[in-house]
Amino acid sequence: MKNKNSAVLTGDRPTGTLHLGHLVGSIQNRIALQDQYDRCFYMVADIQALTDNADNPEKVRNNVFEVTLDNLAAGVSPQKTTFFIQSQVPEIAELTVLLLNLVTLARLKRNPTVKDEMKQKGFGEDVPAGFLAYPVSQAADILFCGANLVPVGEDQLPVIEQANEIVLKFNALYGETFQKITPVLSTTPRLVGIDGNAKASKSLNNTIFLNDSFEEIQKKVMMMYTDPEHIHASDSGNVGNNVVFTYLDIFDPKKNEVRLLKEHYTRGGLGDVEIKKRLIDVLEHIIAPIRTRRRELERDPDTVMDILKSGTKKTRVIAQETMRKVRKAVKINYFD
Amino acid sequence: MKNKNSAVLTGDRPTGTLHLGHLVGSIQNRIALQDQYDRCFYMVADIQALTDNADNPEKVRNNVFEVTLDNLAAGVSPQKTTFFIQSQVPEIAELTVLLLNLVTLARLKRNPTVKDEMKQKGFGEDVPAGFLAYPVSQAADILFCGANLVPVGEDQLPVIEQANEIVLKFNALYGETFQKITPVLSTTPRLVGIDGNAKASKSLNNTIFLNDSFEEIQKKVMMMYTDPEHIHASDSGNVGNNVVFTYLDIFDPKKNEVRLLKEHYTRGGLGDVEIKKRLIDVLEHIIAPIRTRRRELERDPDTVMDILKSGTKKTRVIAQETMRKVRKAVKINYFD
Repeated sequence: MKNKNSAVLTGDRPTGTLHLGHLVGSIQNRIALQDQYDRCFYMVADIQALTDNADNPEKVRNNVFEVTLDNLAAGVSPQKTTFFIQSQVPEIAELTVLLLNLVTLARLKRNPTVKDEMKQKGFGEDVPAGFLAYPVSQAADILFCGANLVPVGEDQLPVIEQANEIVLKFNALYGETFQKITPVLSTTPRLVGIDGNAKASKSLNNTIFLNDSFEEIQKKVMMMYTDPEHIHASDSGNVGNNVVFTYLDIFDPKKNEVRLLKEHYTRGGLGDVEIKKRLIDVLEHIIAPIRTRRRELERDPDTVMDILKSGTKKTRVIAQETMRKVRKAVKINYFD
Repeated sequence: MKNKNSAVLTGDRPTGTLHLGHLVGSIQNRIALQDQYDRCFYMVADIQALTDNADNPEKVRNNVFEVTLDNLAAGVSPQKTTFFIQSQVPEIAELTVLLLNLVTLARLKRNPTVKDEMKQKGFGEDVPAGFLAYPVSQAADILFCGANLVPVGEDQLPVIEQANEIVLKFNALYGETFQKITPVLSTTPRLVGIDGNAKASKSLNNTIFLNDSFEEIQKKVMMMYTDPEHIHASDSGNVGNNVVFTYLDIFDPKKNEVRLLKEHYTRGGLGDVEIKKRLIDVLEHIIAPIRTRRRELERDPDTVMDILKSGTKKTRVIAQETMRKVRKAVKINYFD
């Protein structure tokens, strides 16, 4: 029996194809949630992607298709999850504009997530207004479809906190309309990059993509950061800050064997090439079916677009119902 | 023959009934323009009013009806001008959200009009984000309906300047889509308050409303600021900083008689009561037909709502056409 009282919203910014970090950080979570909850929405956040890619709409457009492919190929099911494109639900923009009145400039500037991202992107006062305000847009994304469960990384918690402040303010001013949002924290820590960098990201060029070929996986694992002091197989090695073992811990289902390998590596006598070969097999075992399914879907773009189209249509019905309630609450339902 | 190449957008924030300042500052202009241009739009800017009245939606809602009544009663014709309510054209919000990405926070904060208004309203960093961003929303108001002529007061010129920057940026990024906006400056100077204050405004309680009764007009004109040194009719008086003469200059059609009265007042022998009685007659002559027509319309609210409803419907057809072009330009037309 699925839970019918809660609705789940997840999504990706369409700015690049997805990688293993997305798989363990969000896609696997989506796949688990779609079996537990009756109403699951997956949003391709193209409007949010445009907030800092306004000068590159082509990139955003192309990646709408790519991230949808990645999710479908990895097992997010259109039978269980409603796929939709953010820009194709204009009710979200309508709600965003109303919510912008409930948030002060000071509060937007204080959001730690946005502050960090602005720093990363090198934005100061020259930040696009749309980017600074994206937490408000994100509140609208969540609220318009009645979602109350939102899987997030720890770094995104302040965005949910801000959305809940908006919920409180809206309900106080216009009457009980929206419910509190509960963040669902991913249990998987952020995946490190193959170079040992704390974050695997496309821009750092340190990721393994869900559509990488076997050869690419091989090449990338062979380049992986291990223990720089572990020069000969016979040397005792460090498993702690060693990306190969970090990945084996996460992706290798045979936990006991991994434990034994770690012991062996620590006391010496186990070479990097051997553990890397094992990881290549483990990752290929995970990625091969995704890759195959992706190739099939790539050859049938109409089916992919139909999934987005019918999901968007279904979502708009819900959006219109929400906006009817919102317009009534804000007393702008003149013609009803 | 009306001009068919340009479209005119005008509008009011529904935050109170309109007064003589609005009549000379904008309504008379609207009445002239609707005879010169084929496409004239009149927008009730309820979404803009909510940017700093989010906590008082009832006030905004009631005044949507009131400002429409004022305009209809004063002679803005639904046969010549398309009336619509901003919130009922959600395409404006959709466009606003896209335009927010083309404007930086620094640019929003630099807008002199917004800076002045923030000072007046006592806003600092606690300004609602929607209020700070209203010039972007206003650019969307103008652009969605293809307006290129916008009557404004001198104080609103920076908002049009900012809208034109958005036009340039949008066209540069996404291809030629919008045309340059030309502000049409009102030739009438801002109307002084009955107390001599430079601005007639509801909040200063120094205005004569378009729905004031004859008794209210009488009372207000009798309270008008004249020359405080002009105590006896026989005294010589000052016509320069004298509200009664300022109003006679604007509203009395008999310019020659006003000139002679000014001479008489200056040399002495003309009492305040006499010139005030003349002004009462002049204003009553202007307001009486507006008041009568307003009473008729008030008794027939369905007709007023129908004017807004059918105008909004007509406007949405144009809005949808614009958004089709915009979505194509921004490459978010996935399902076309």
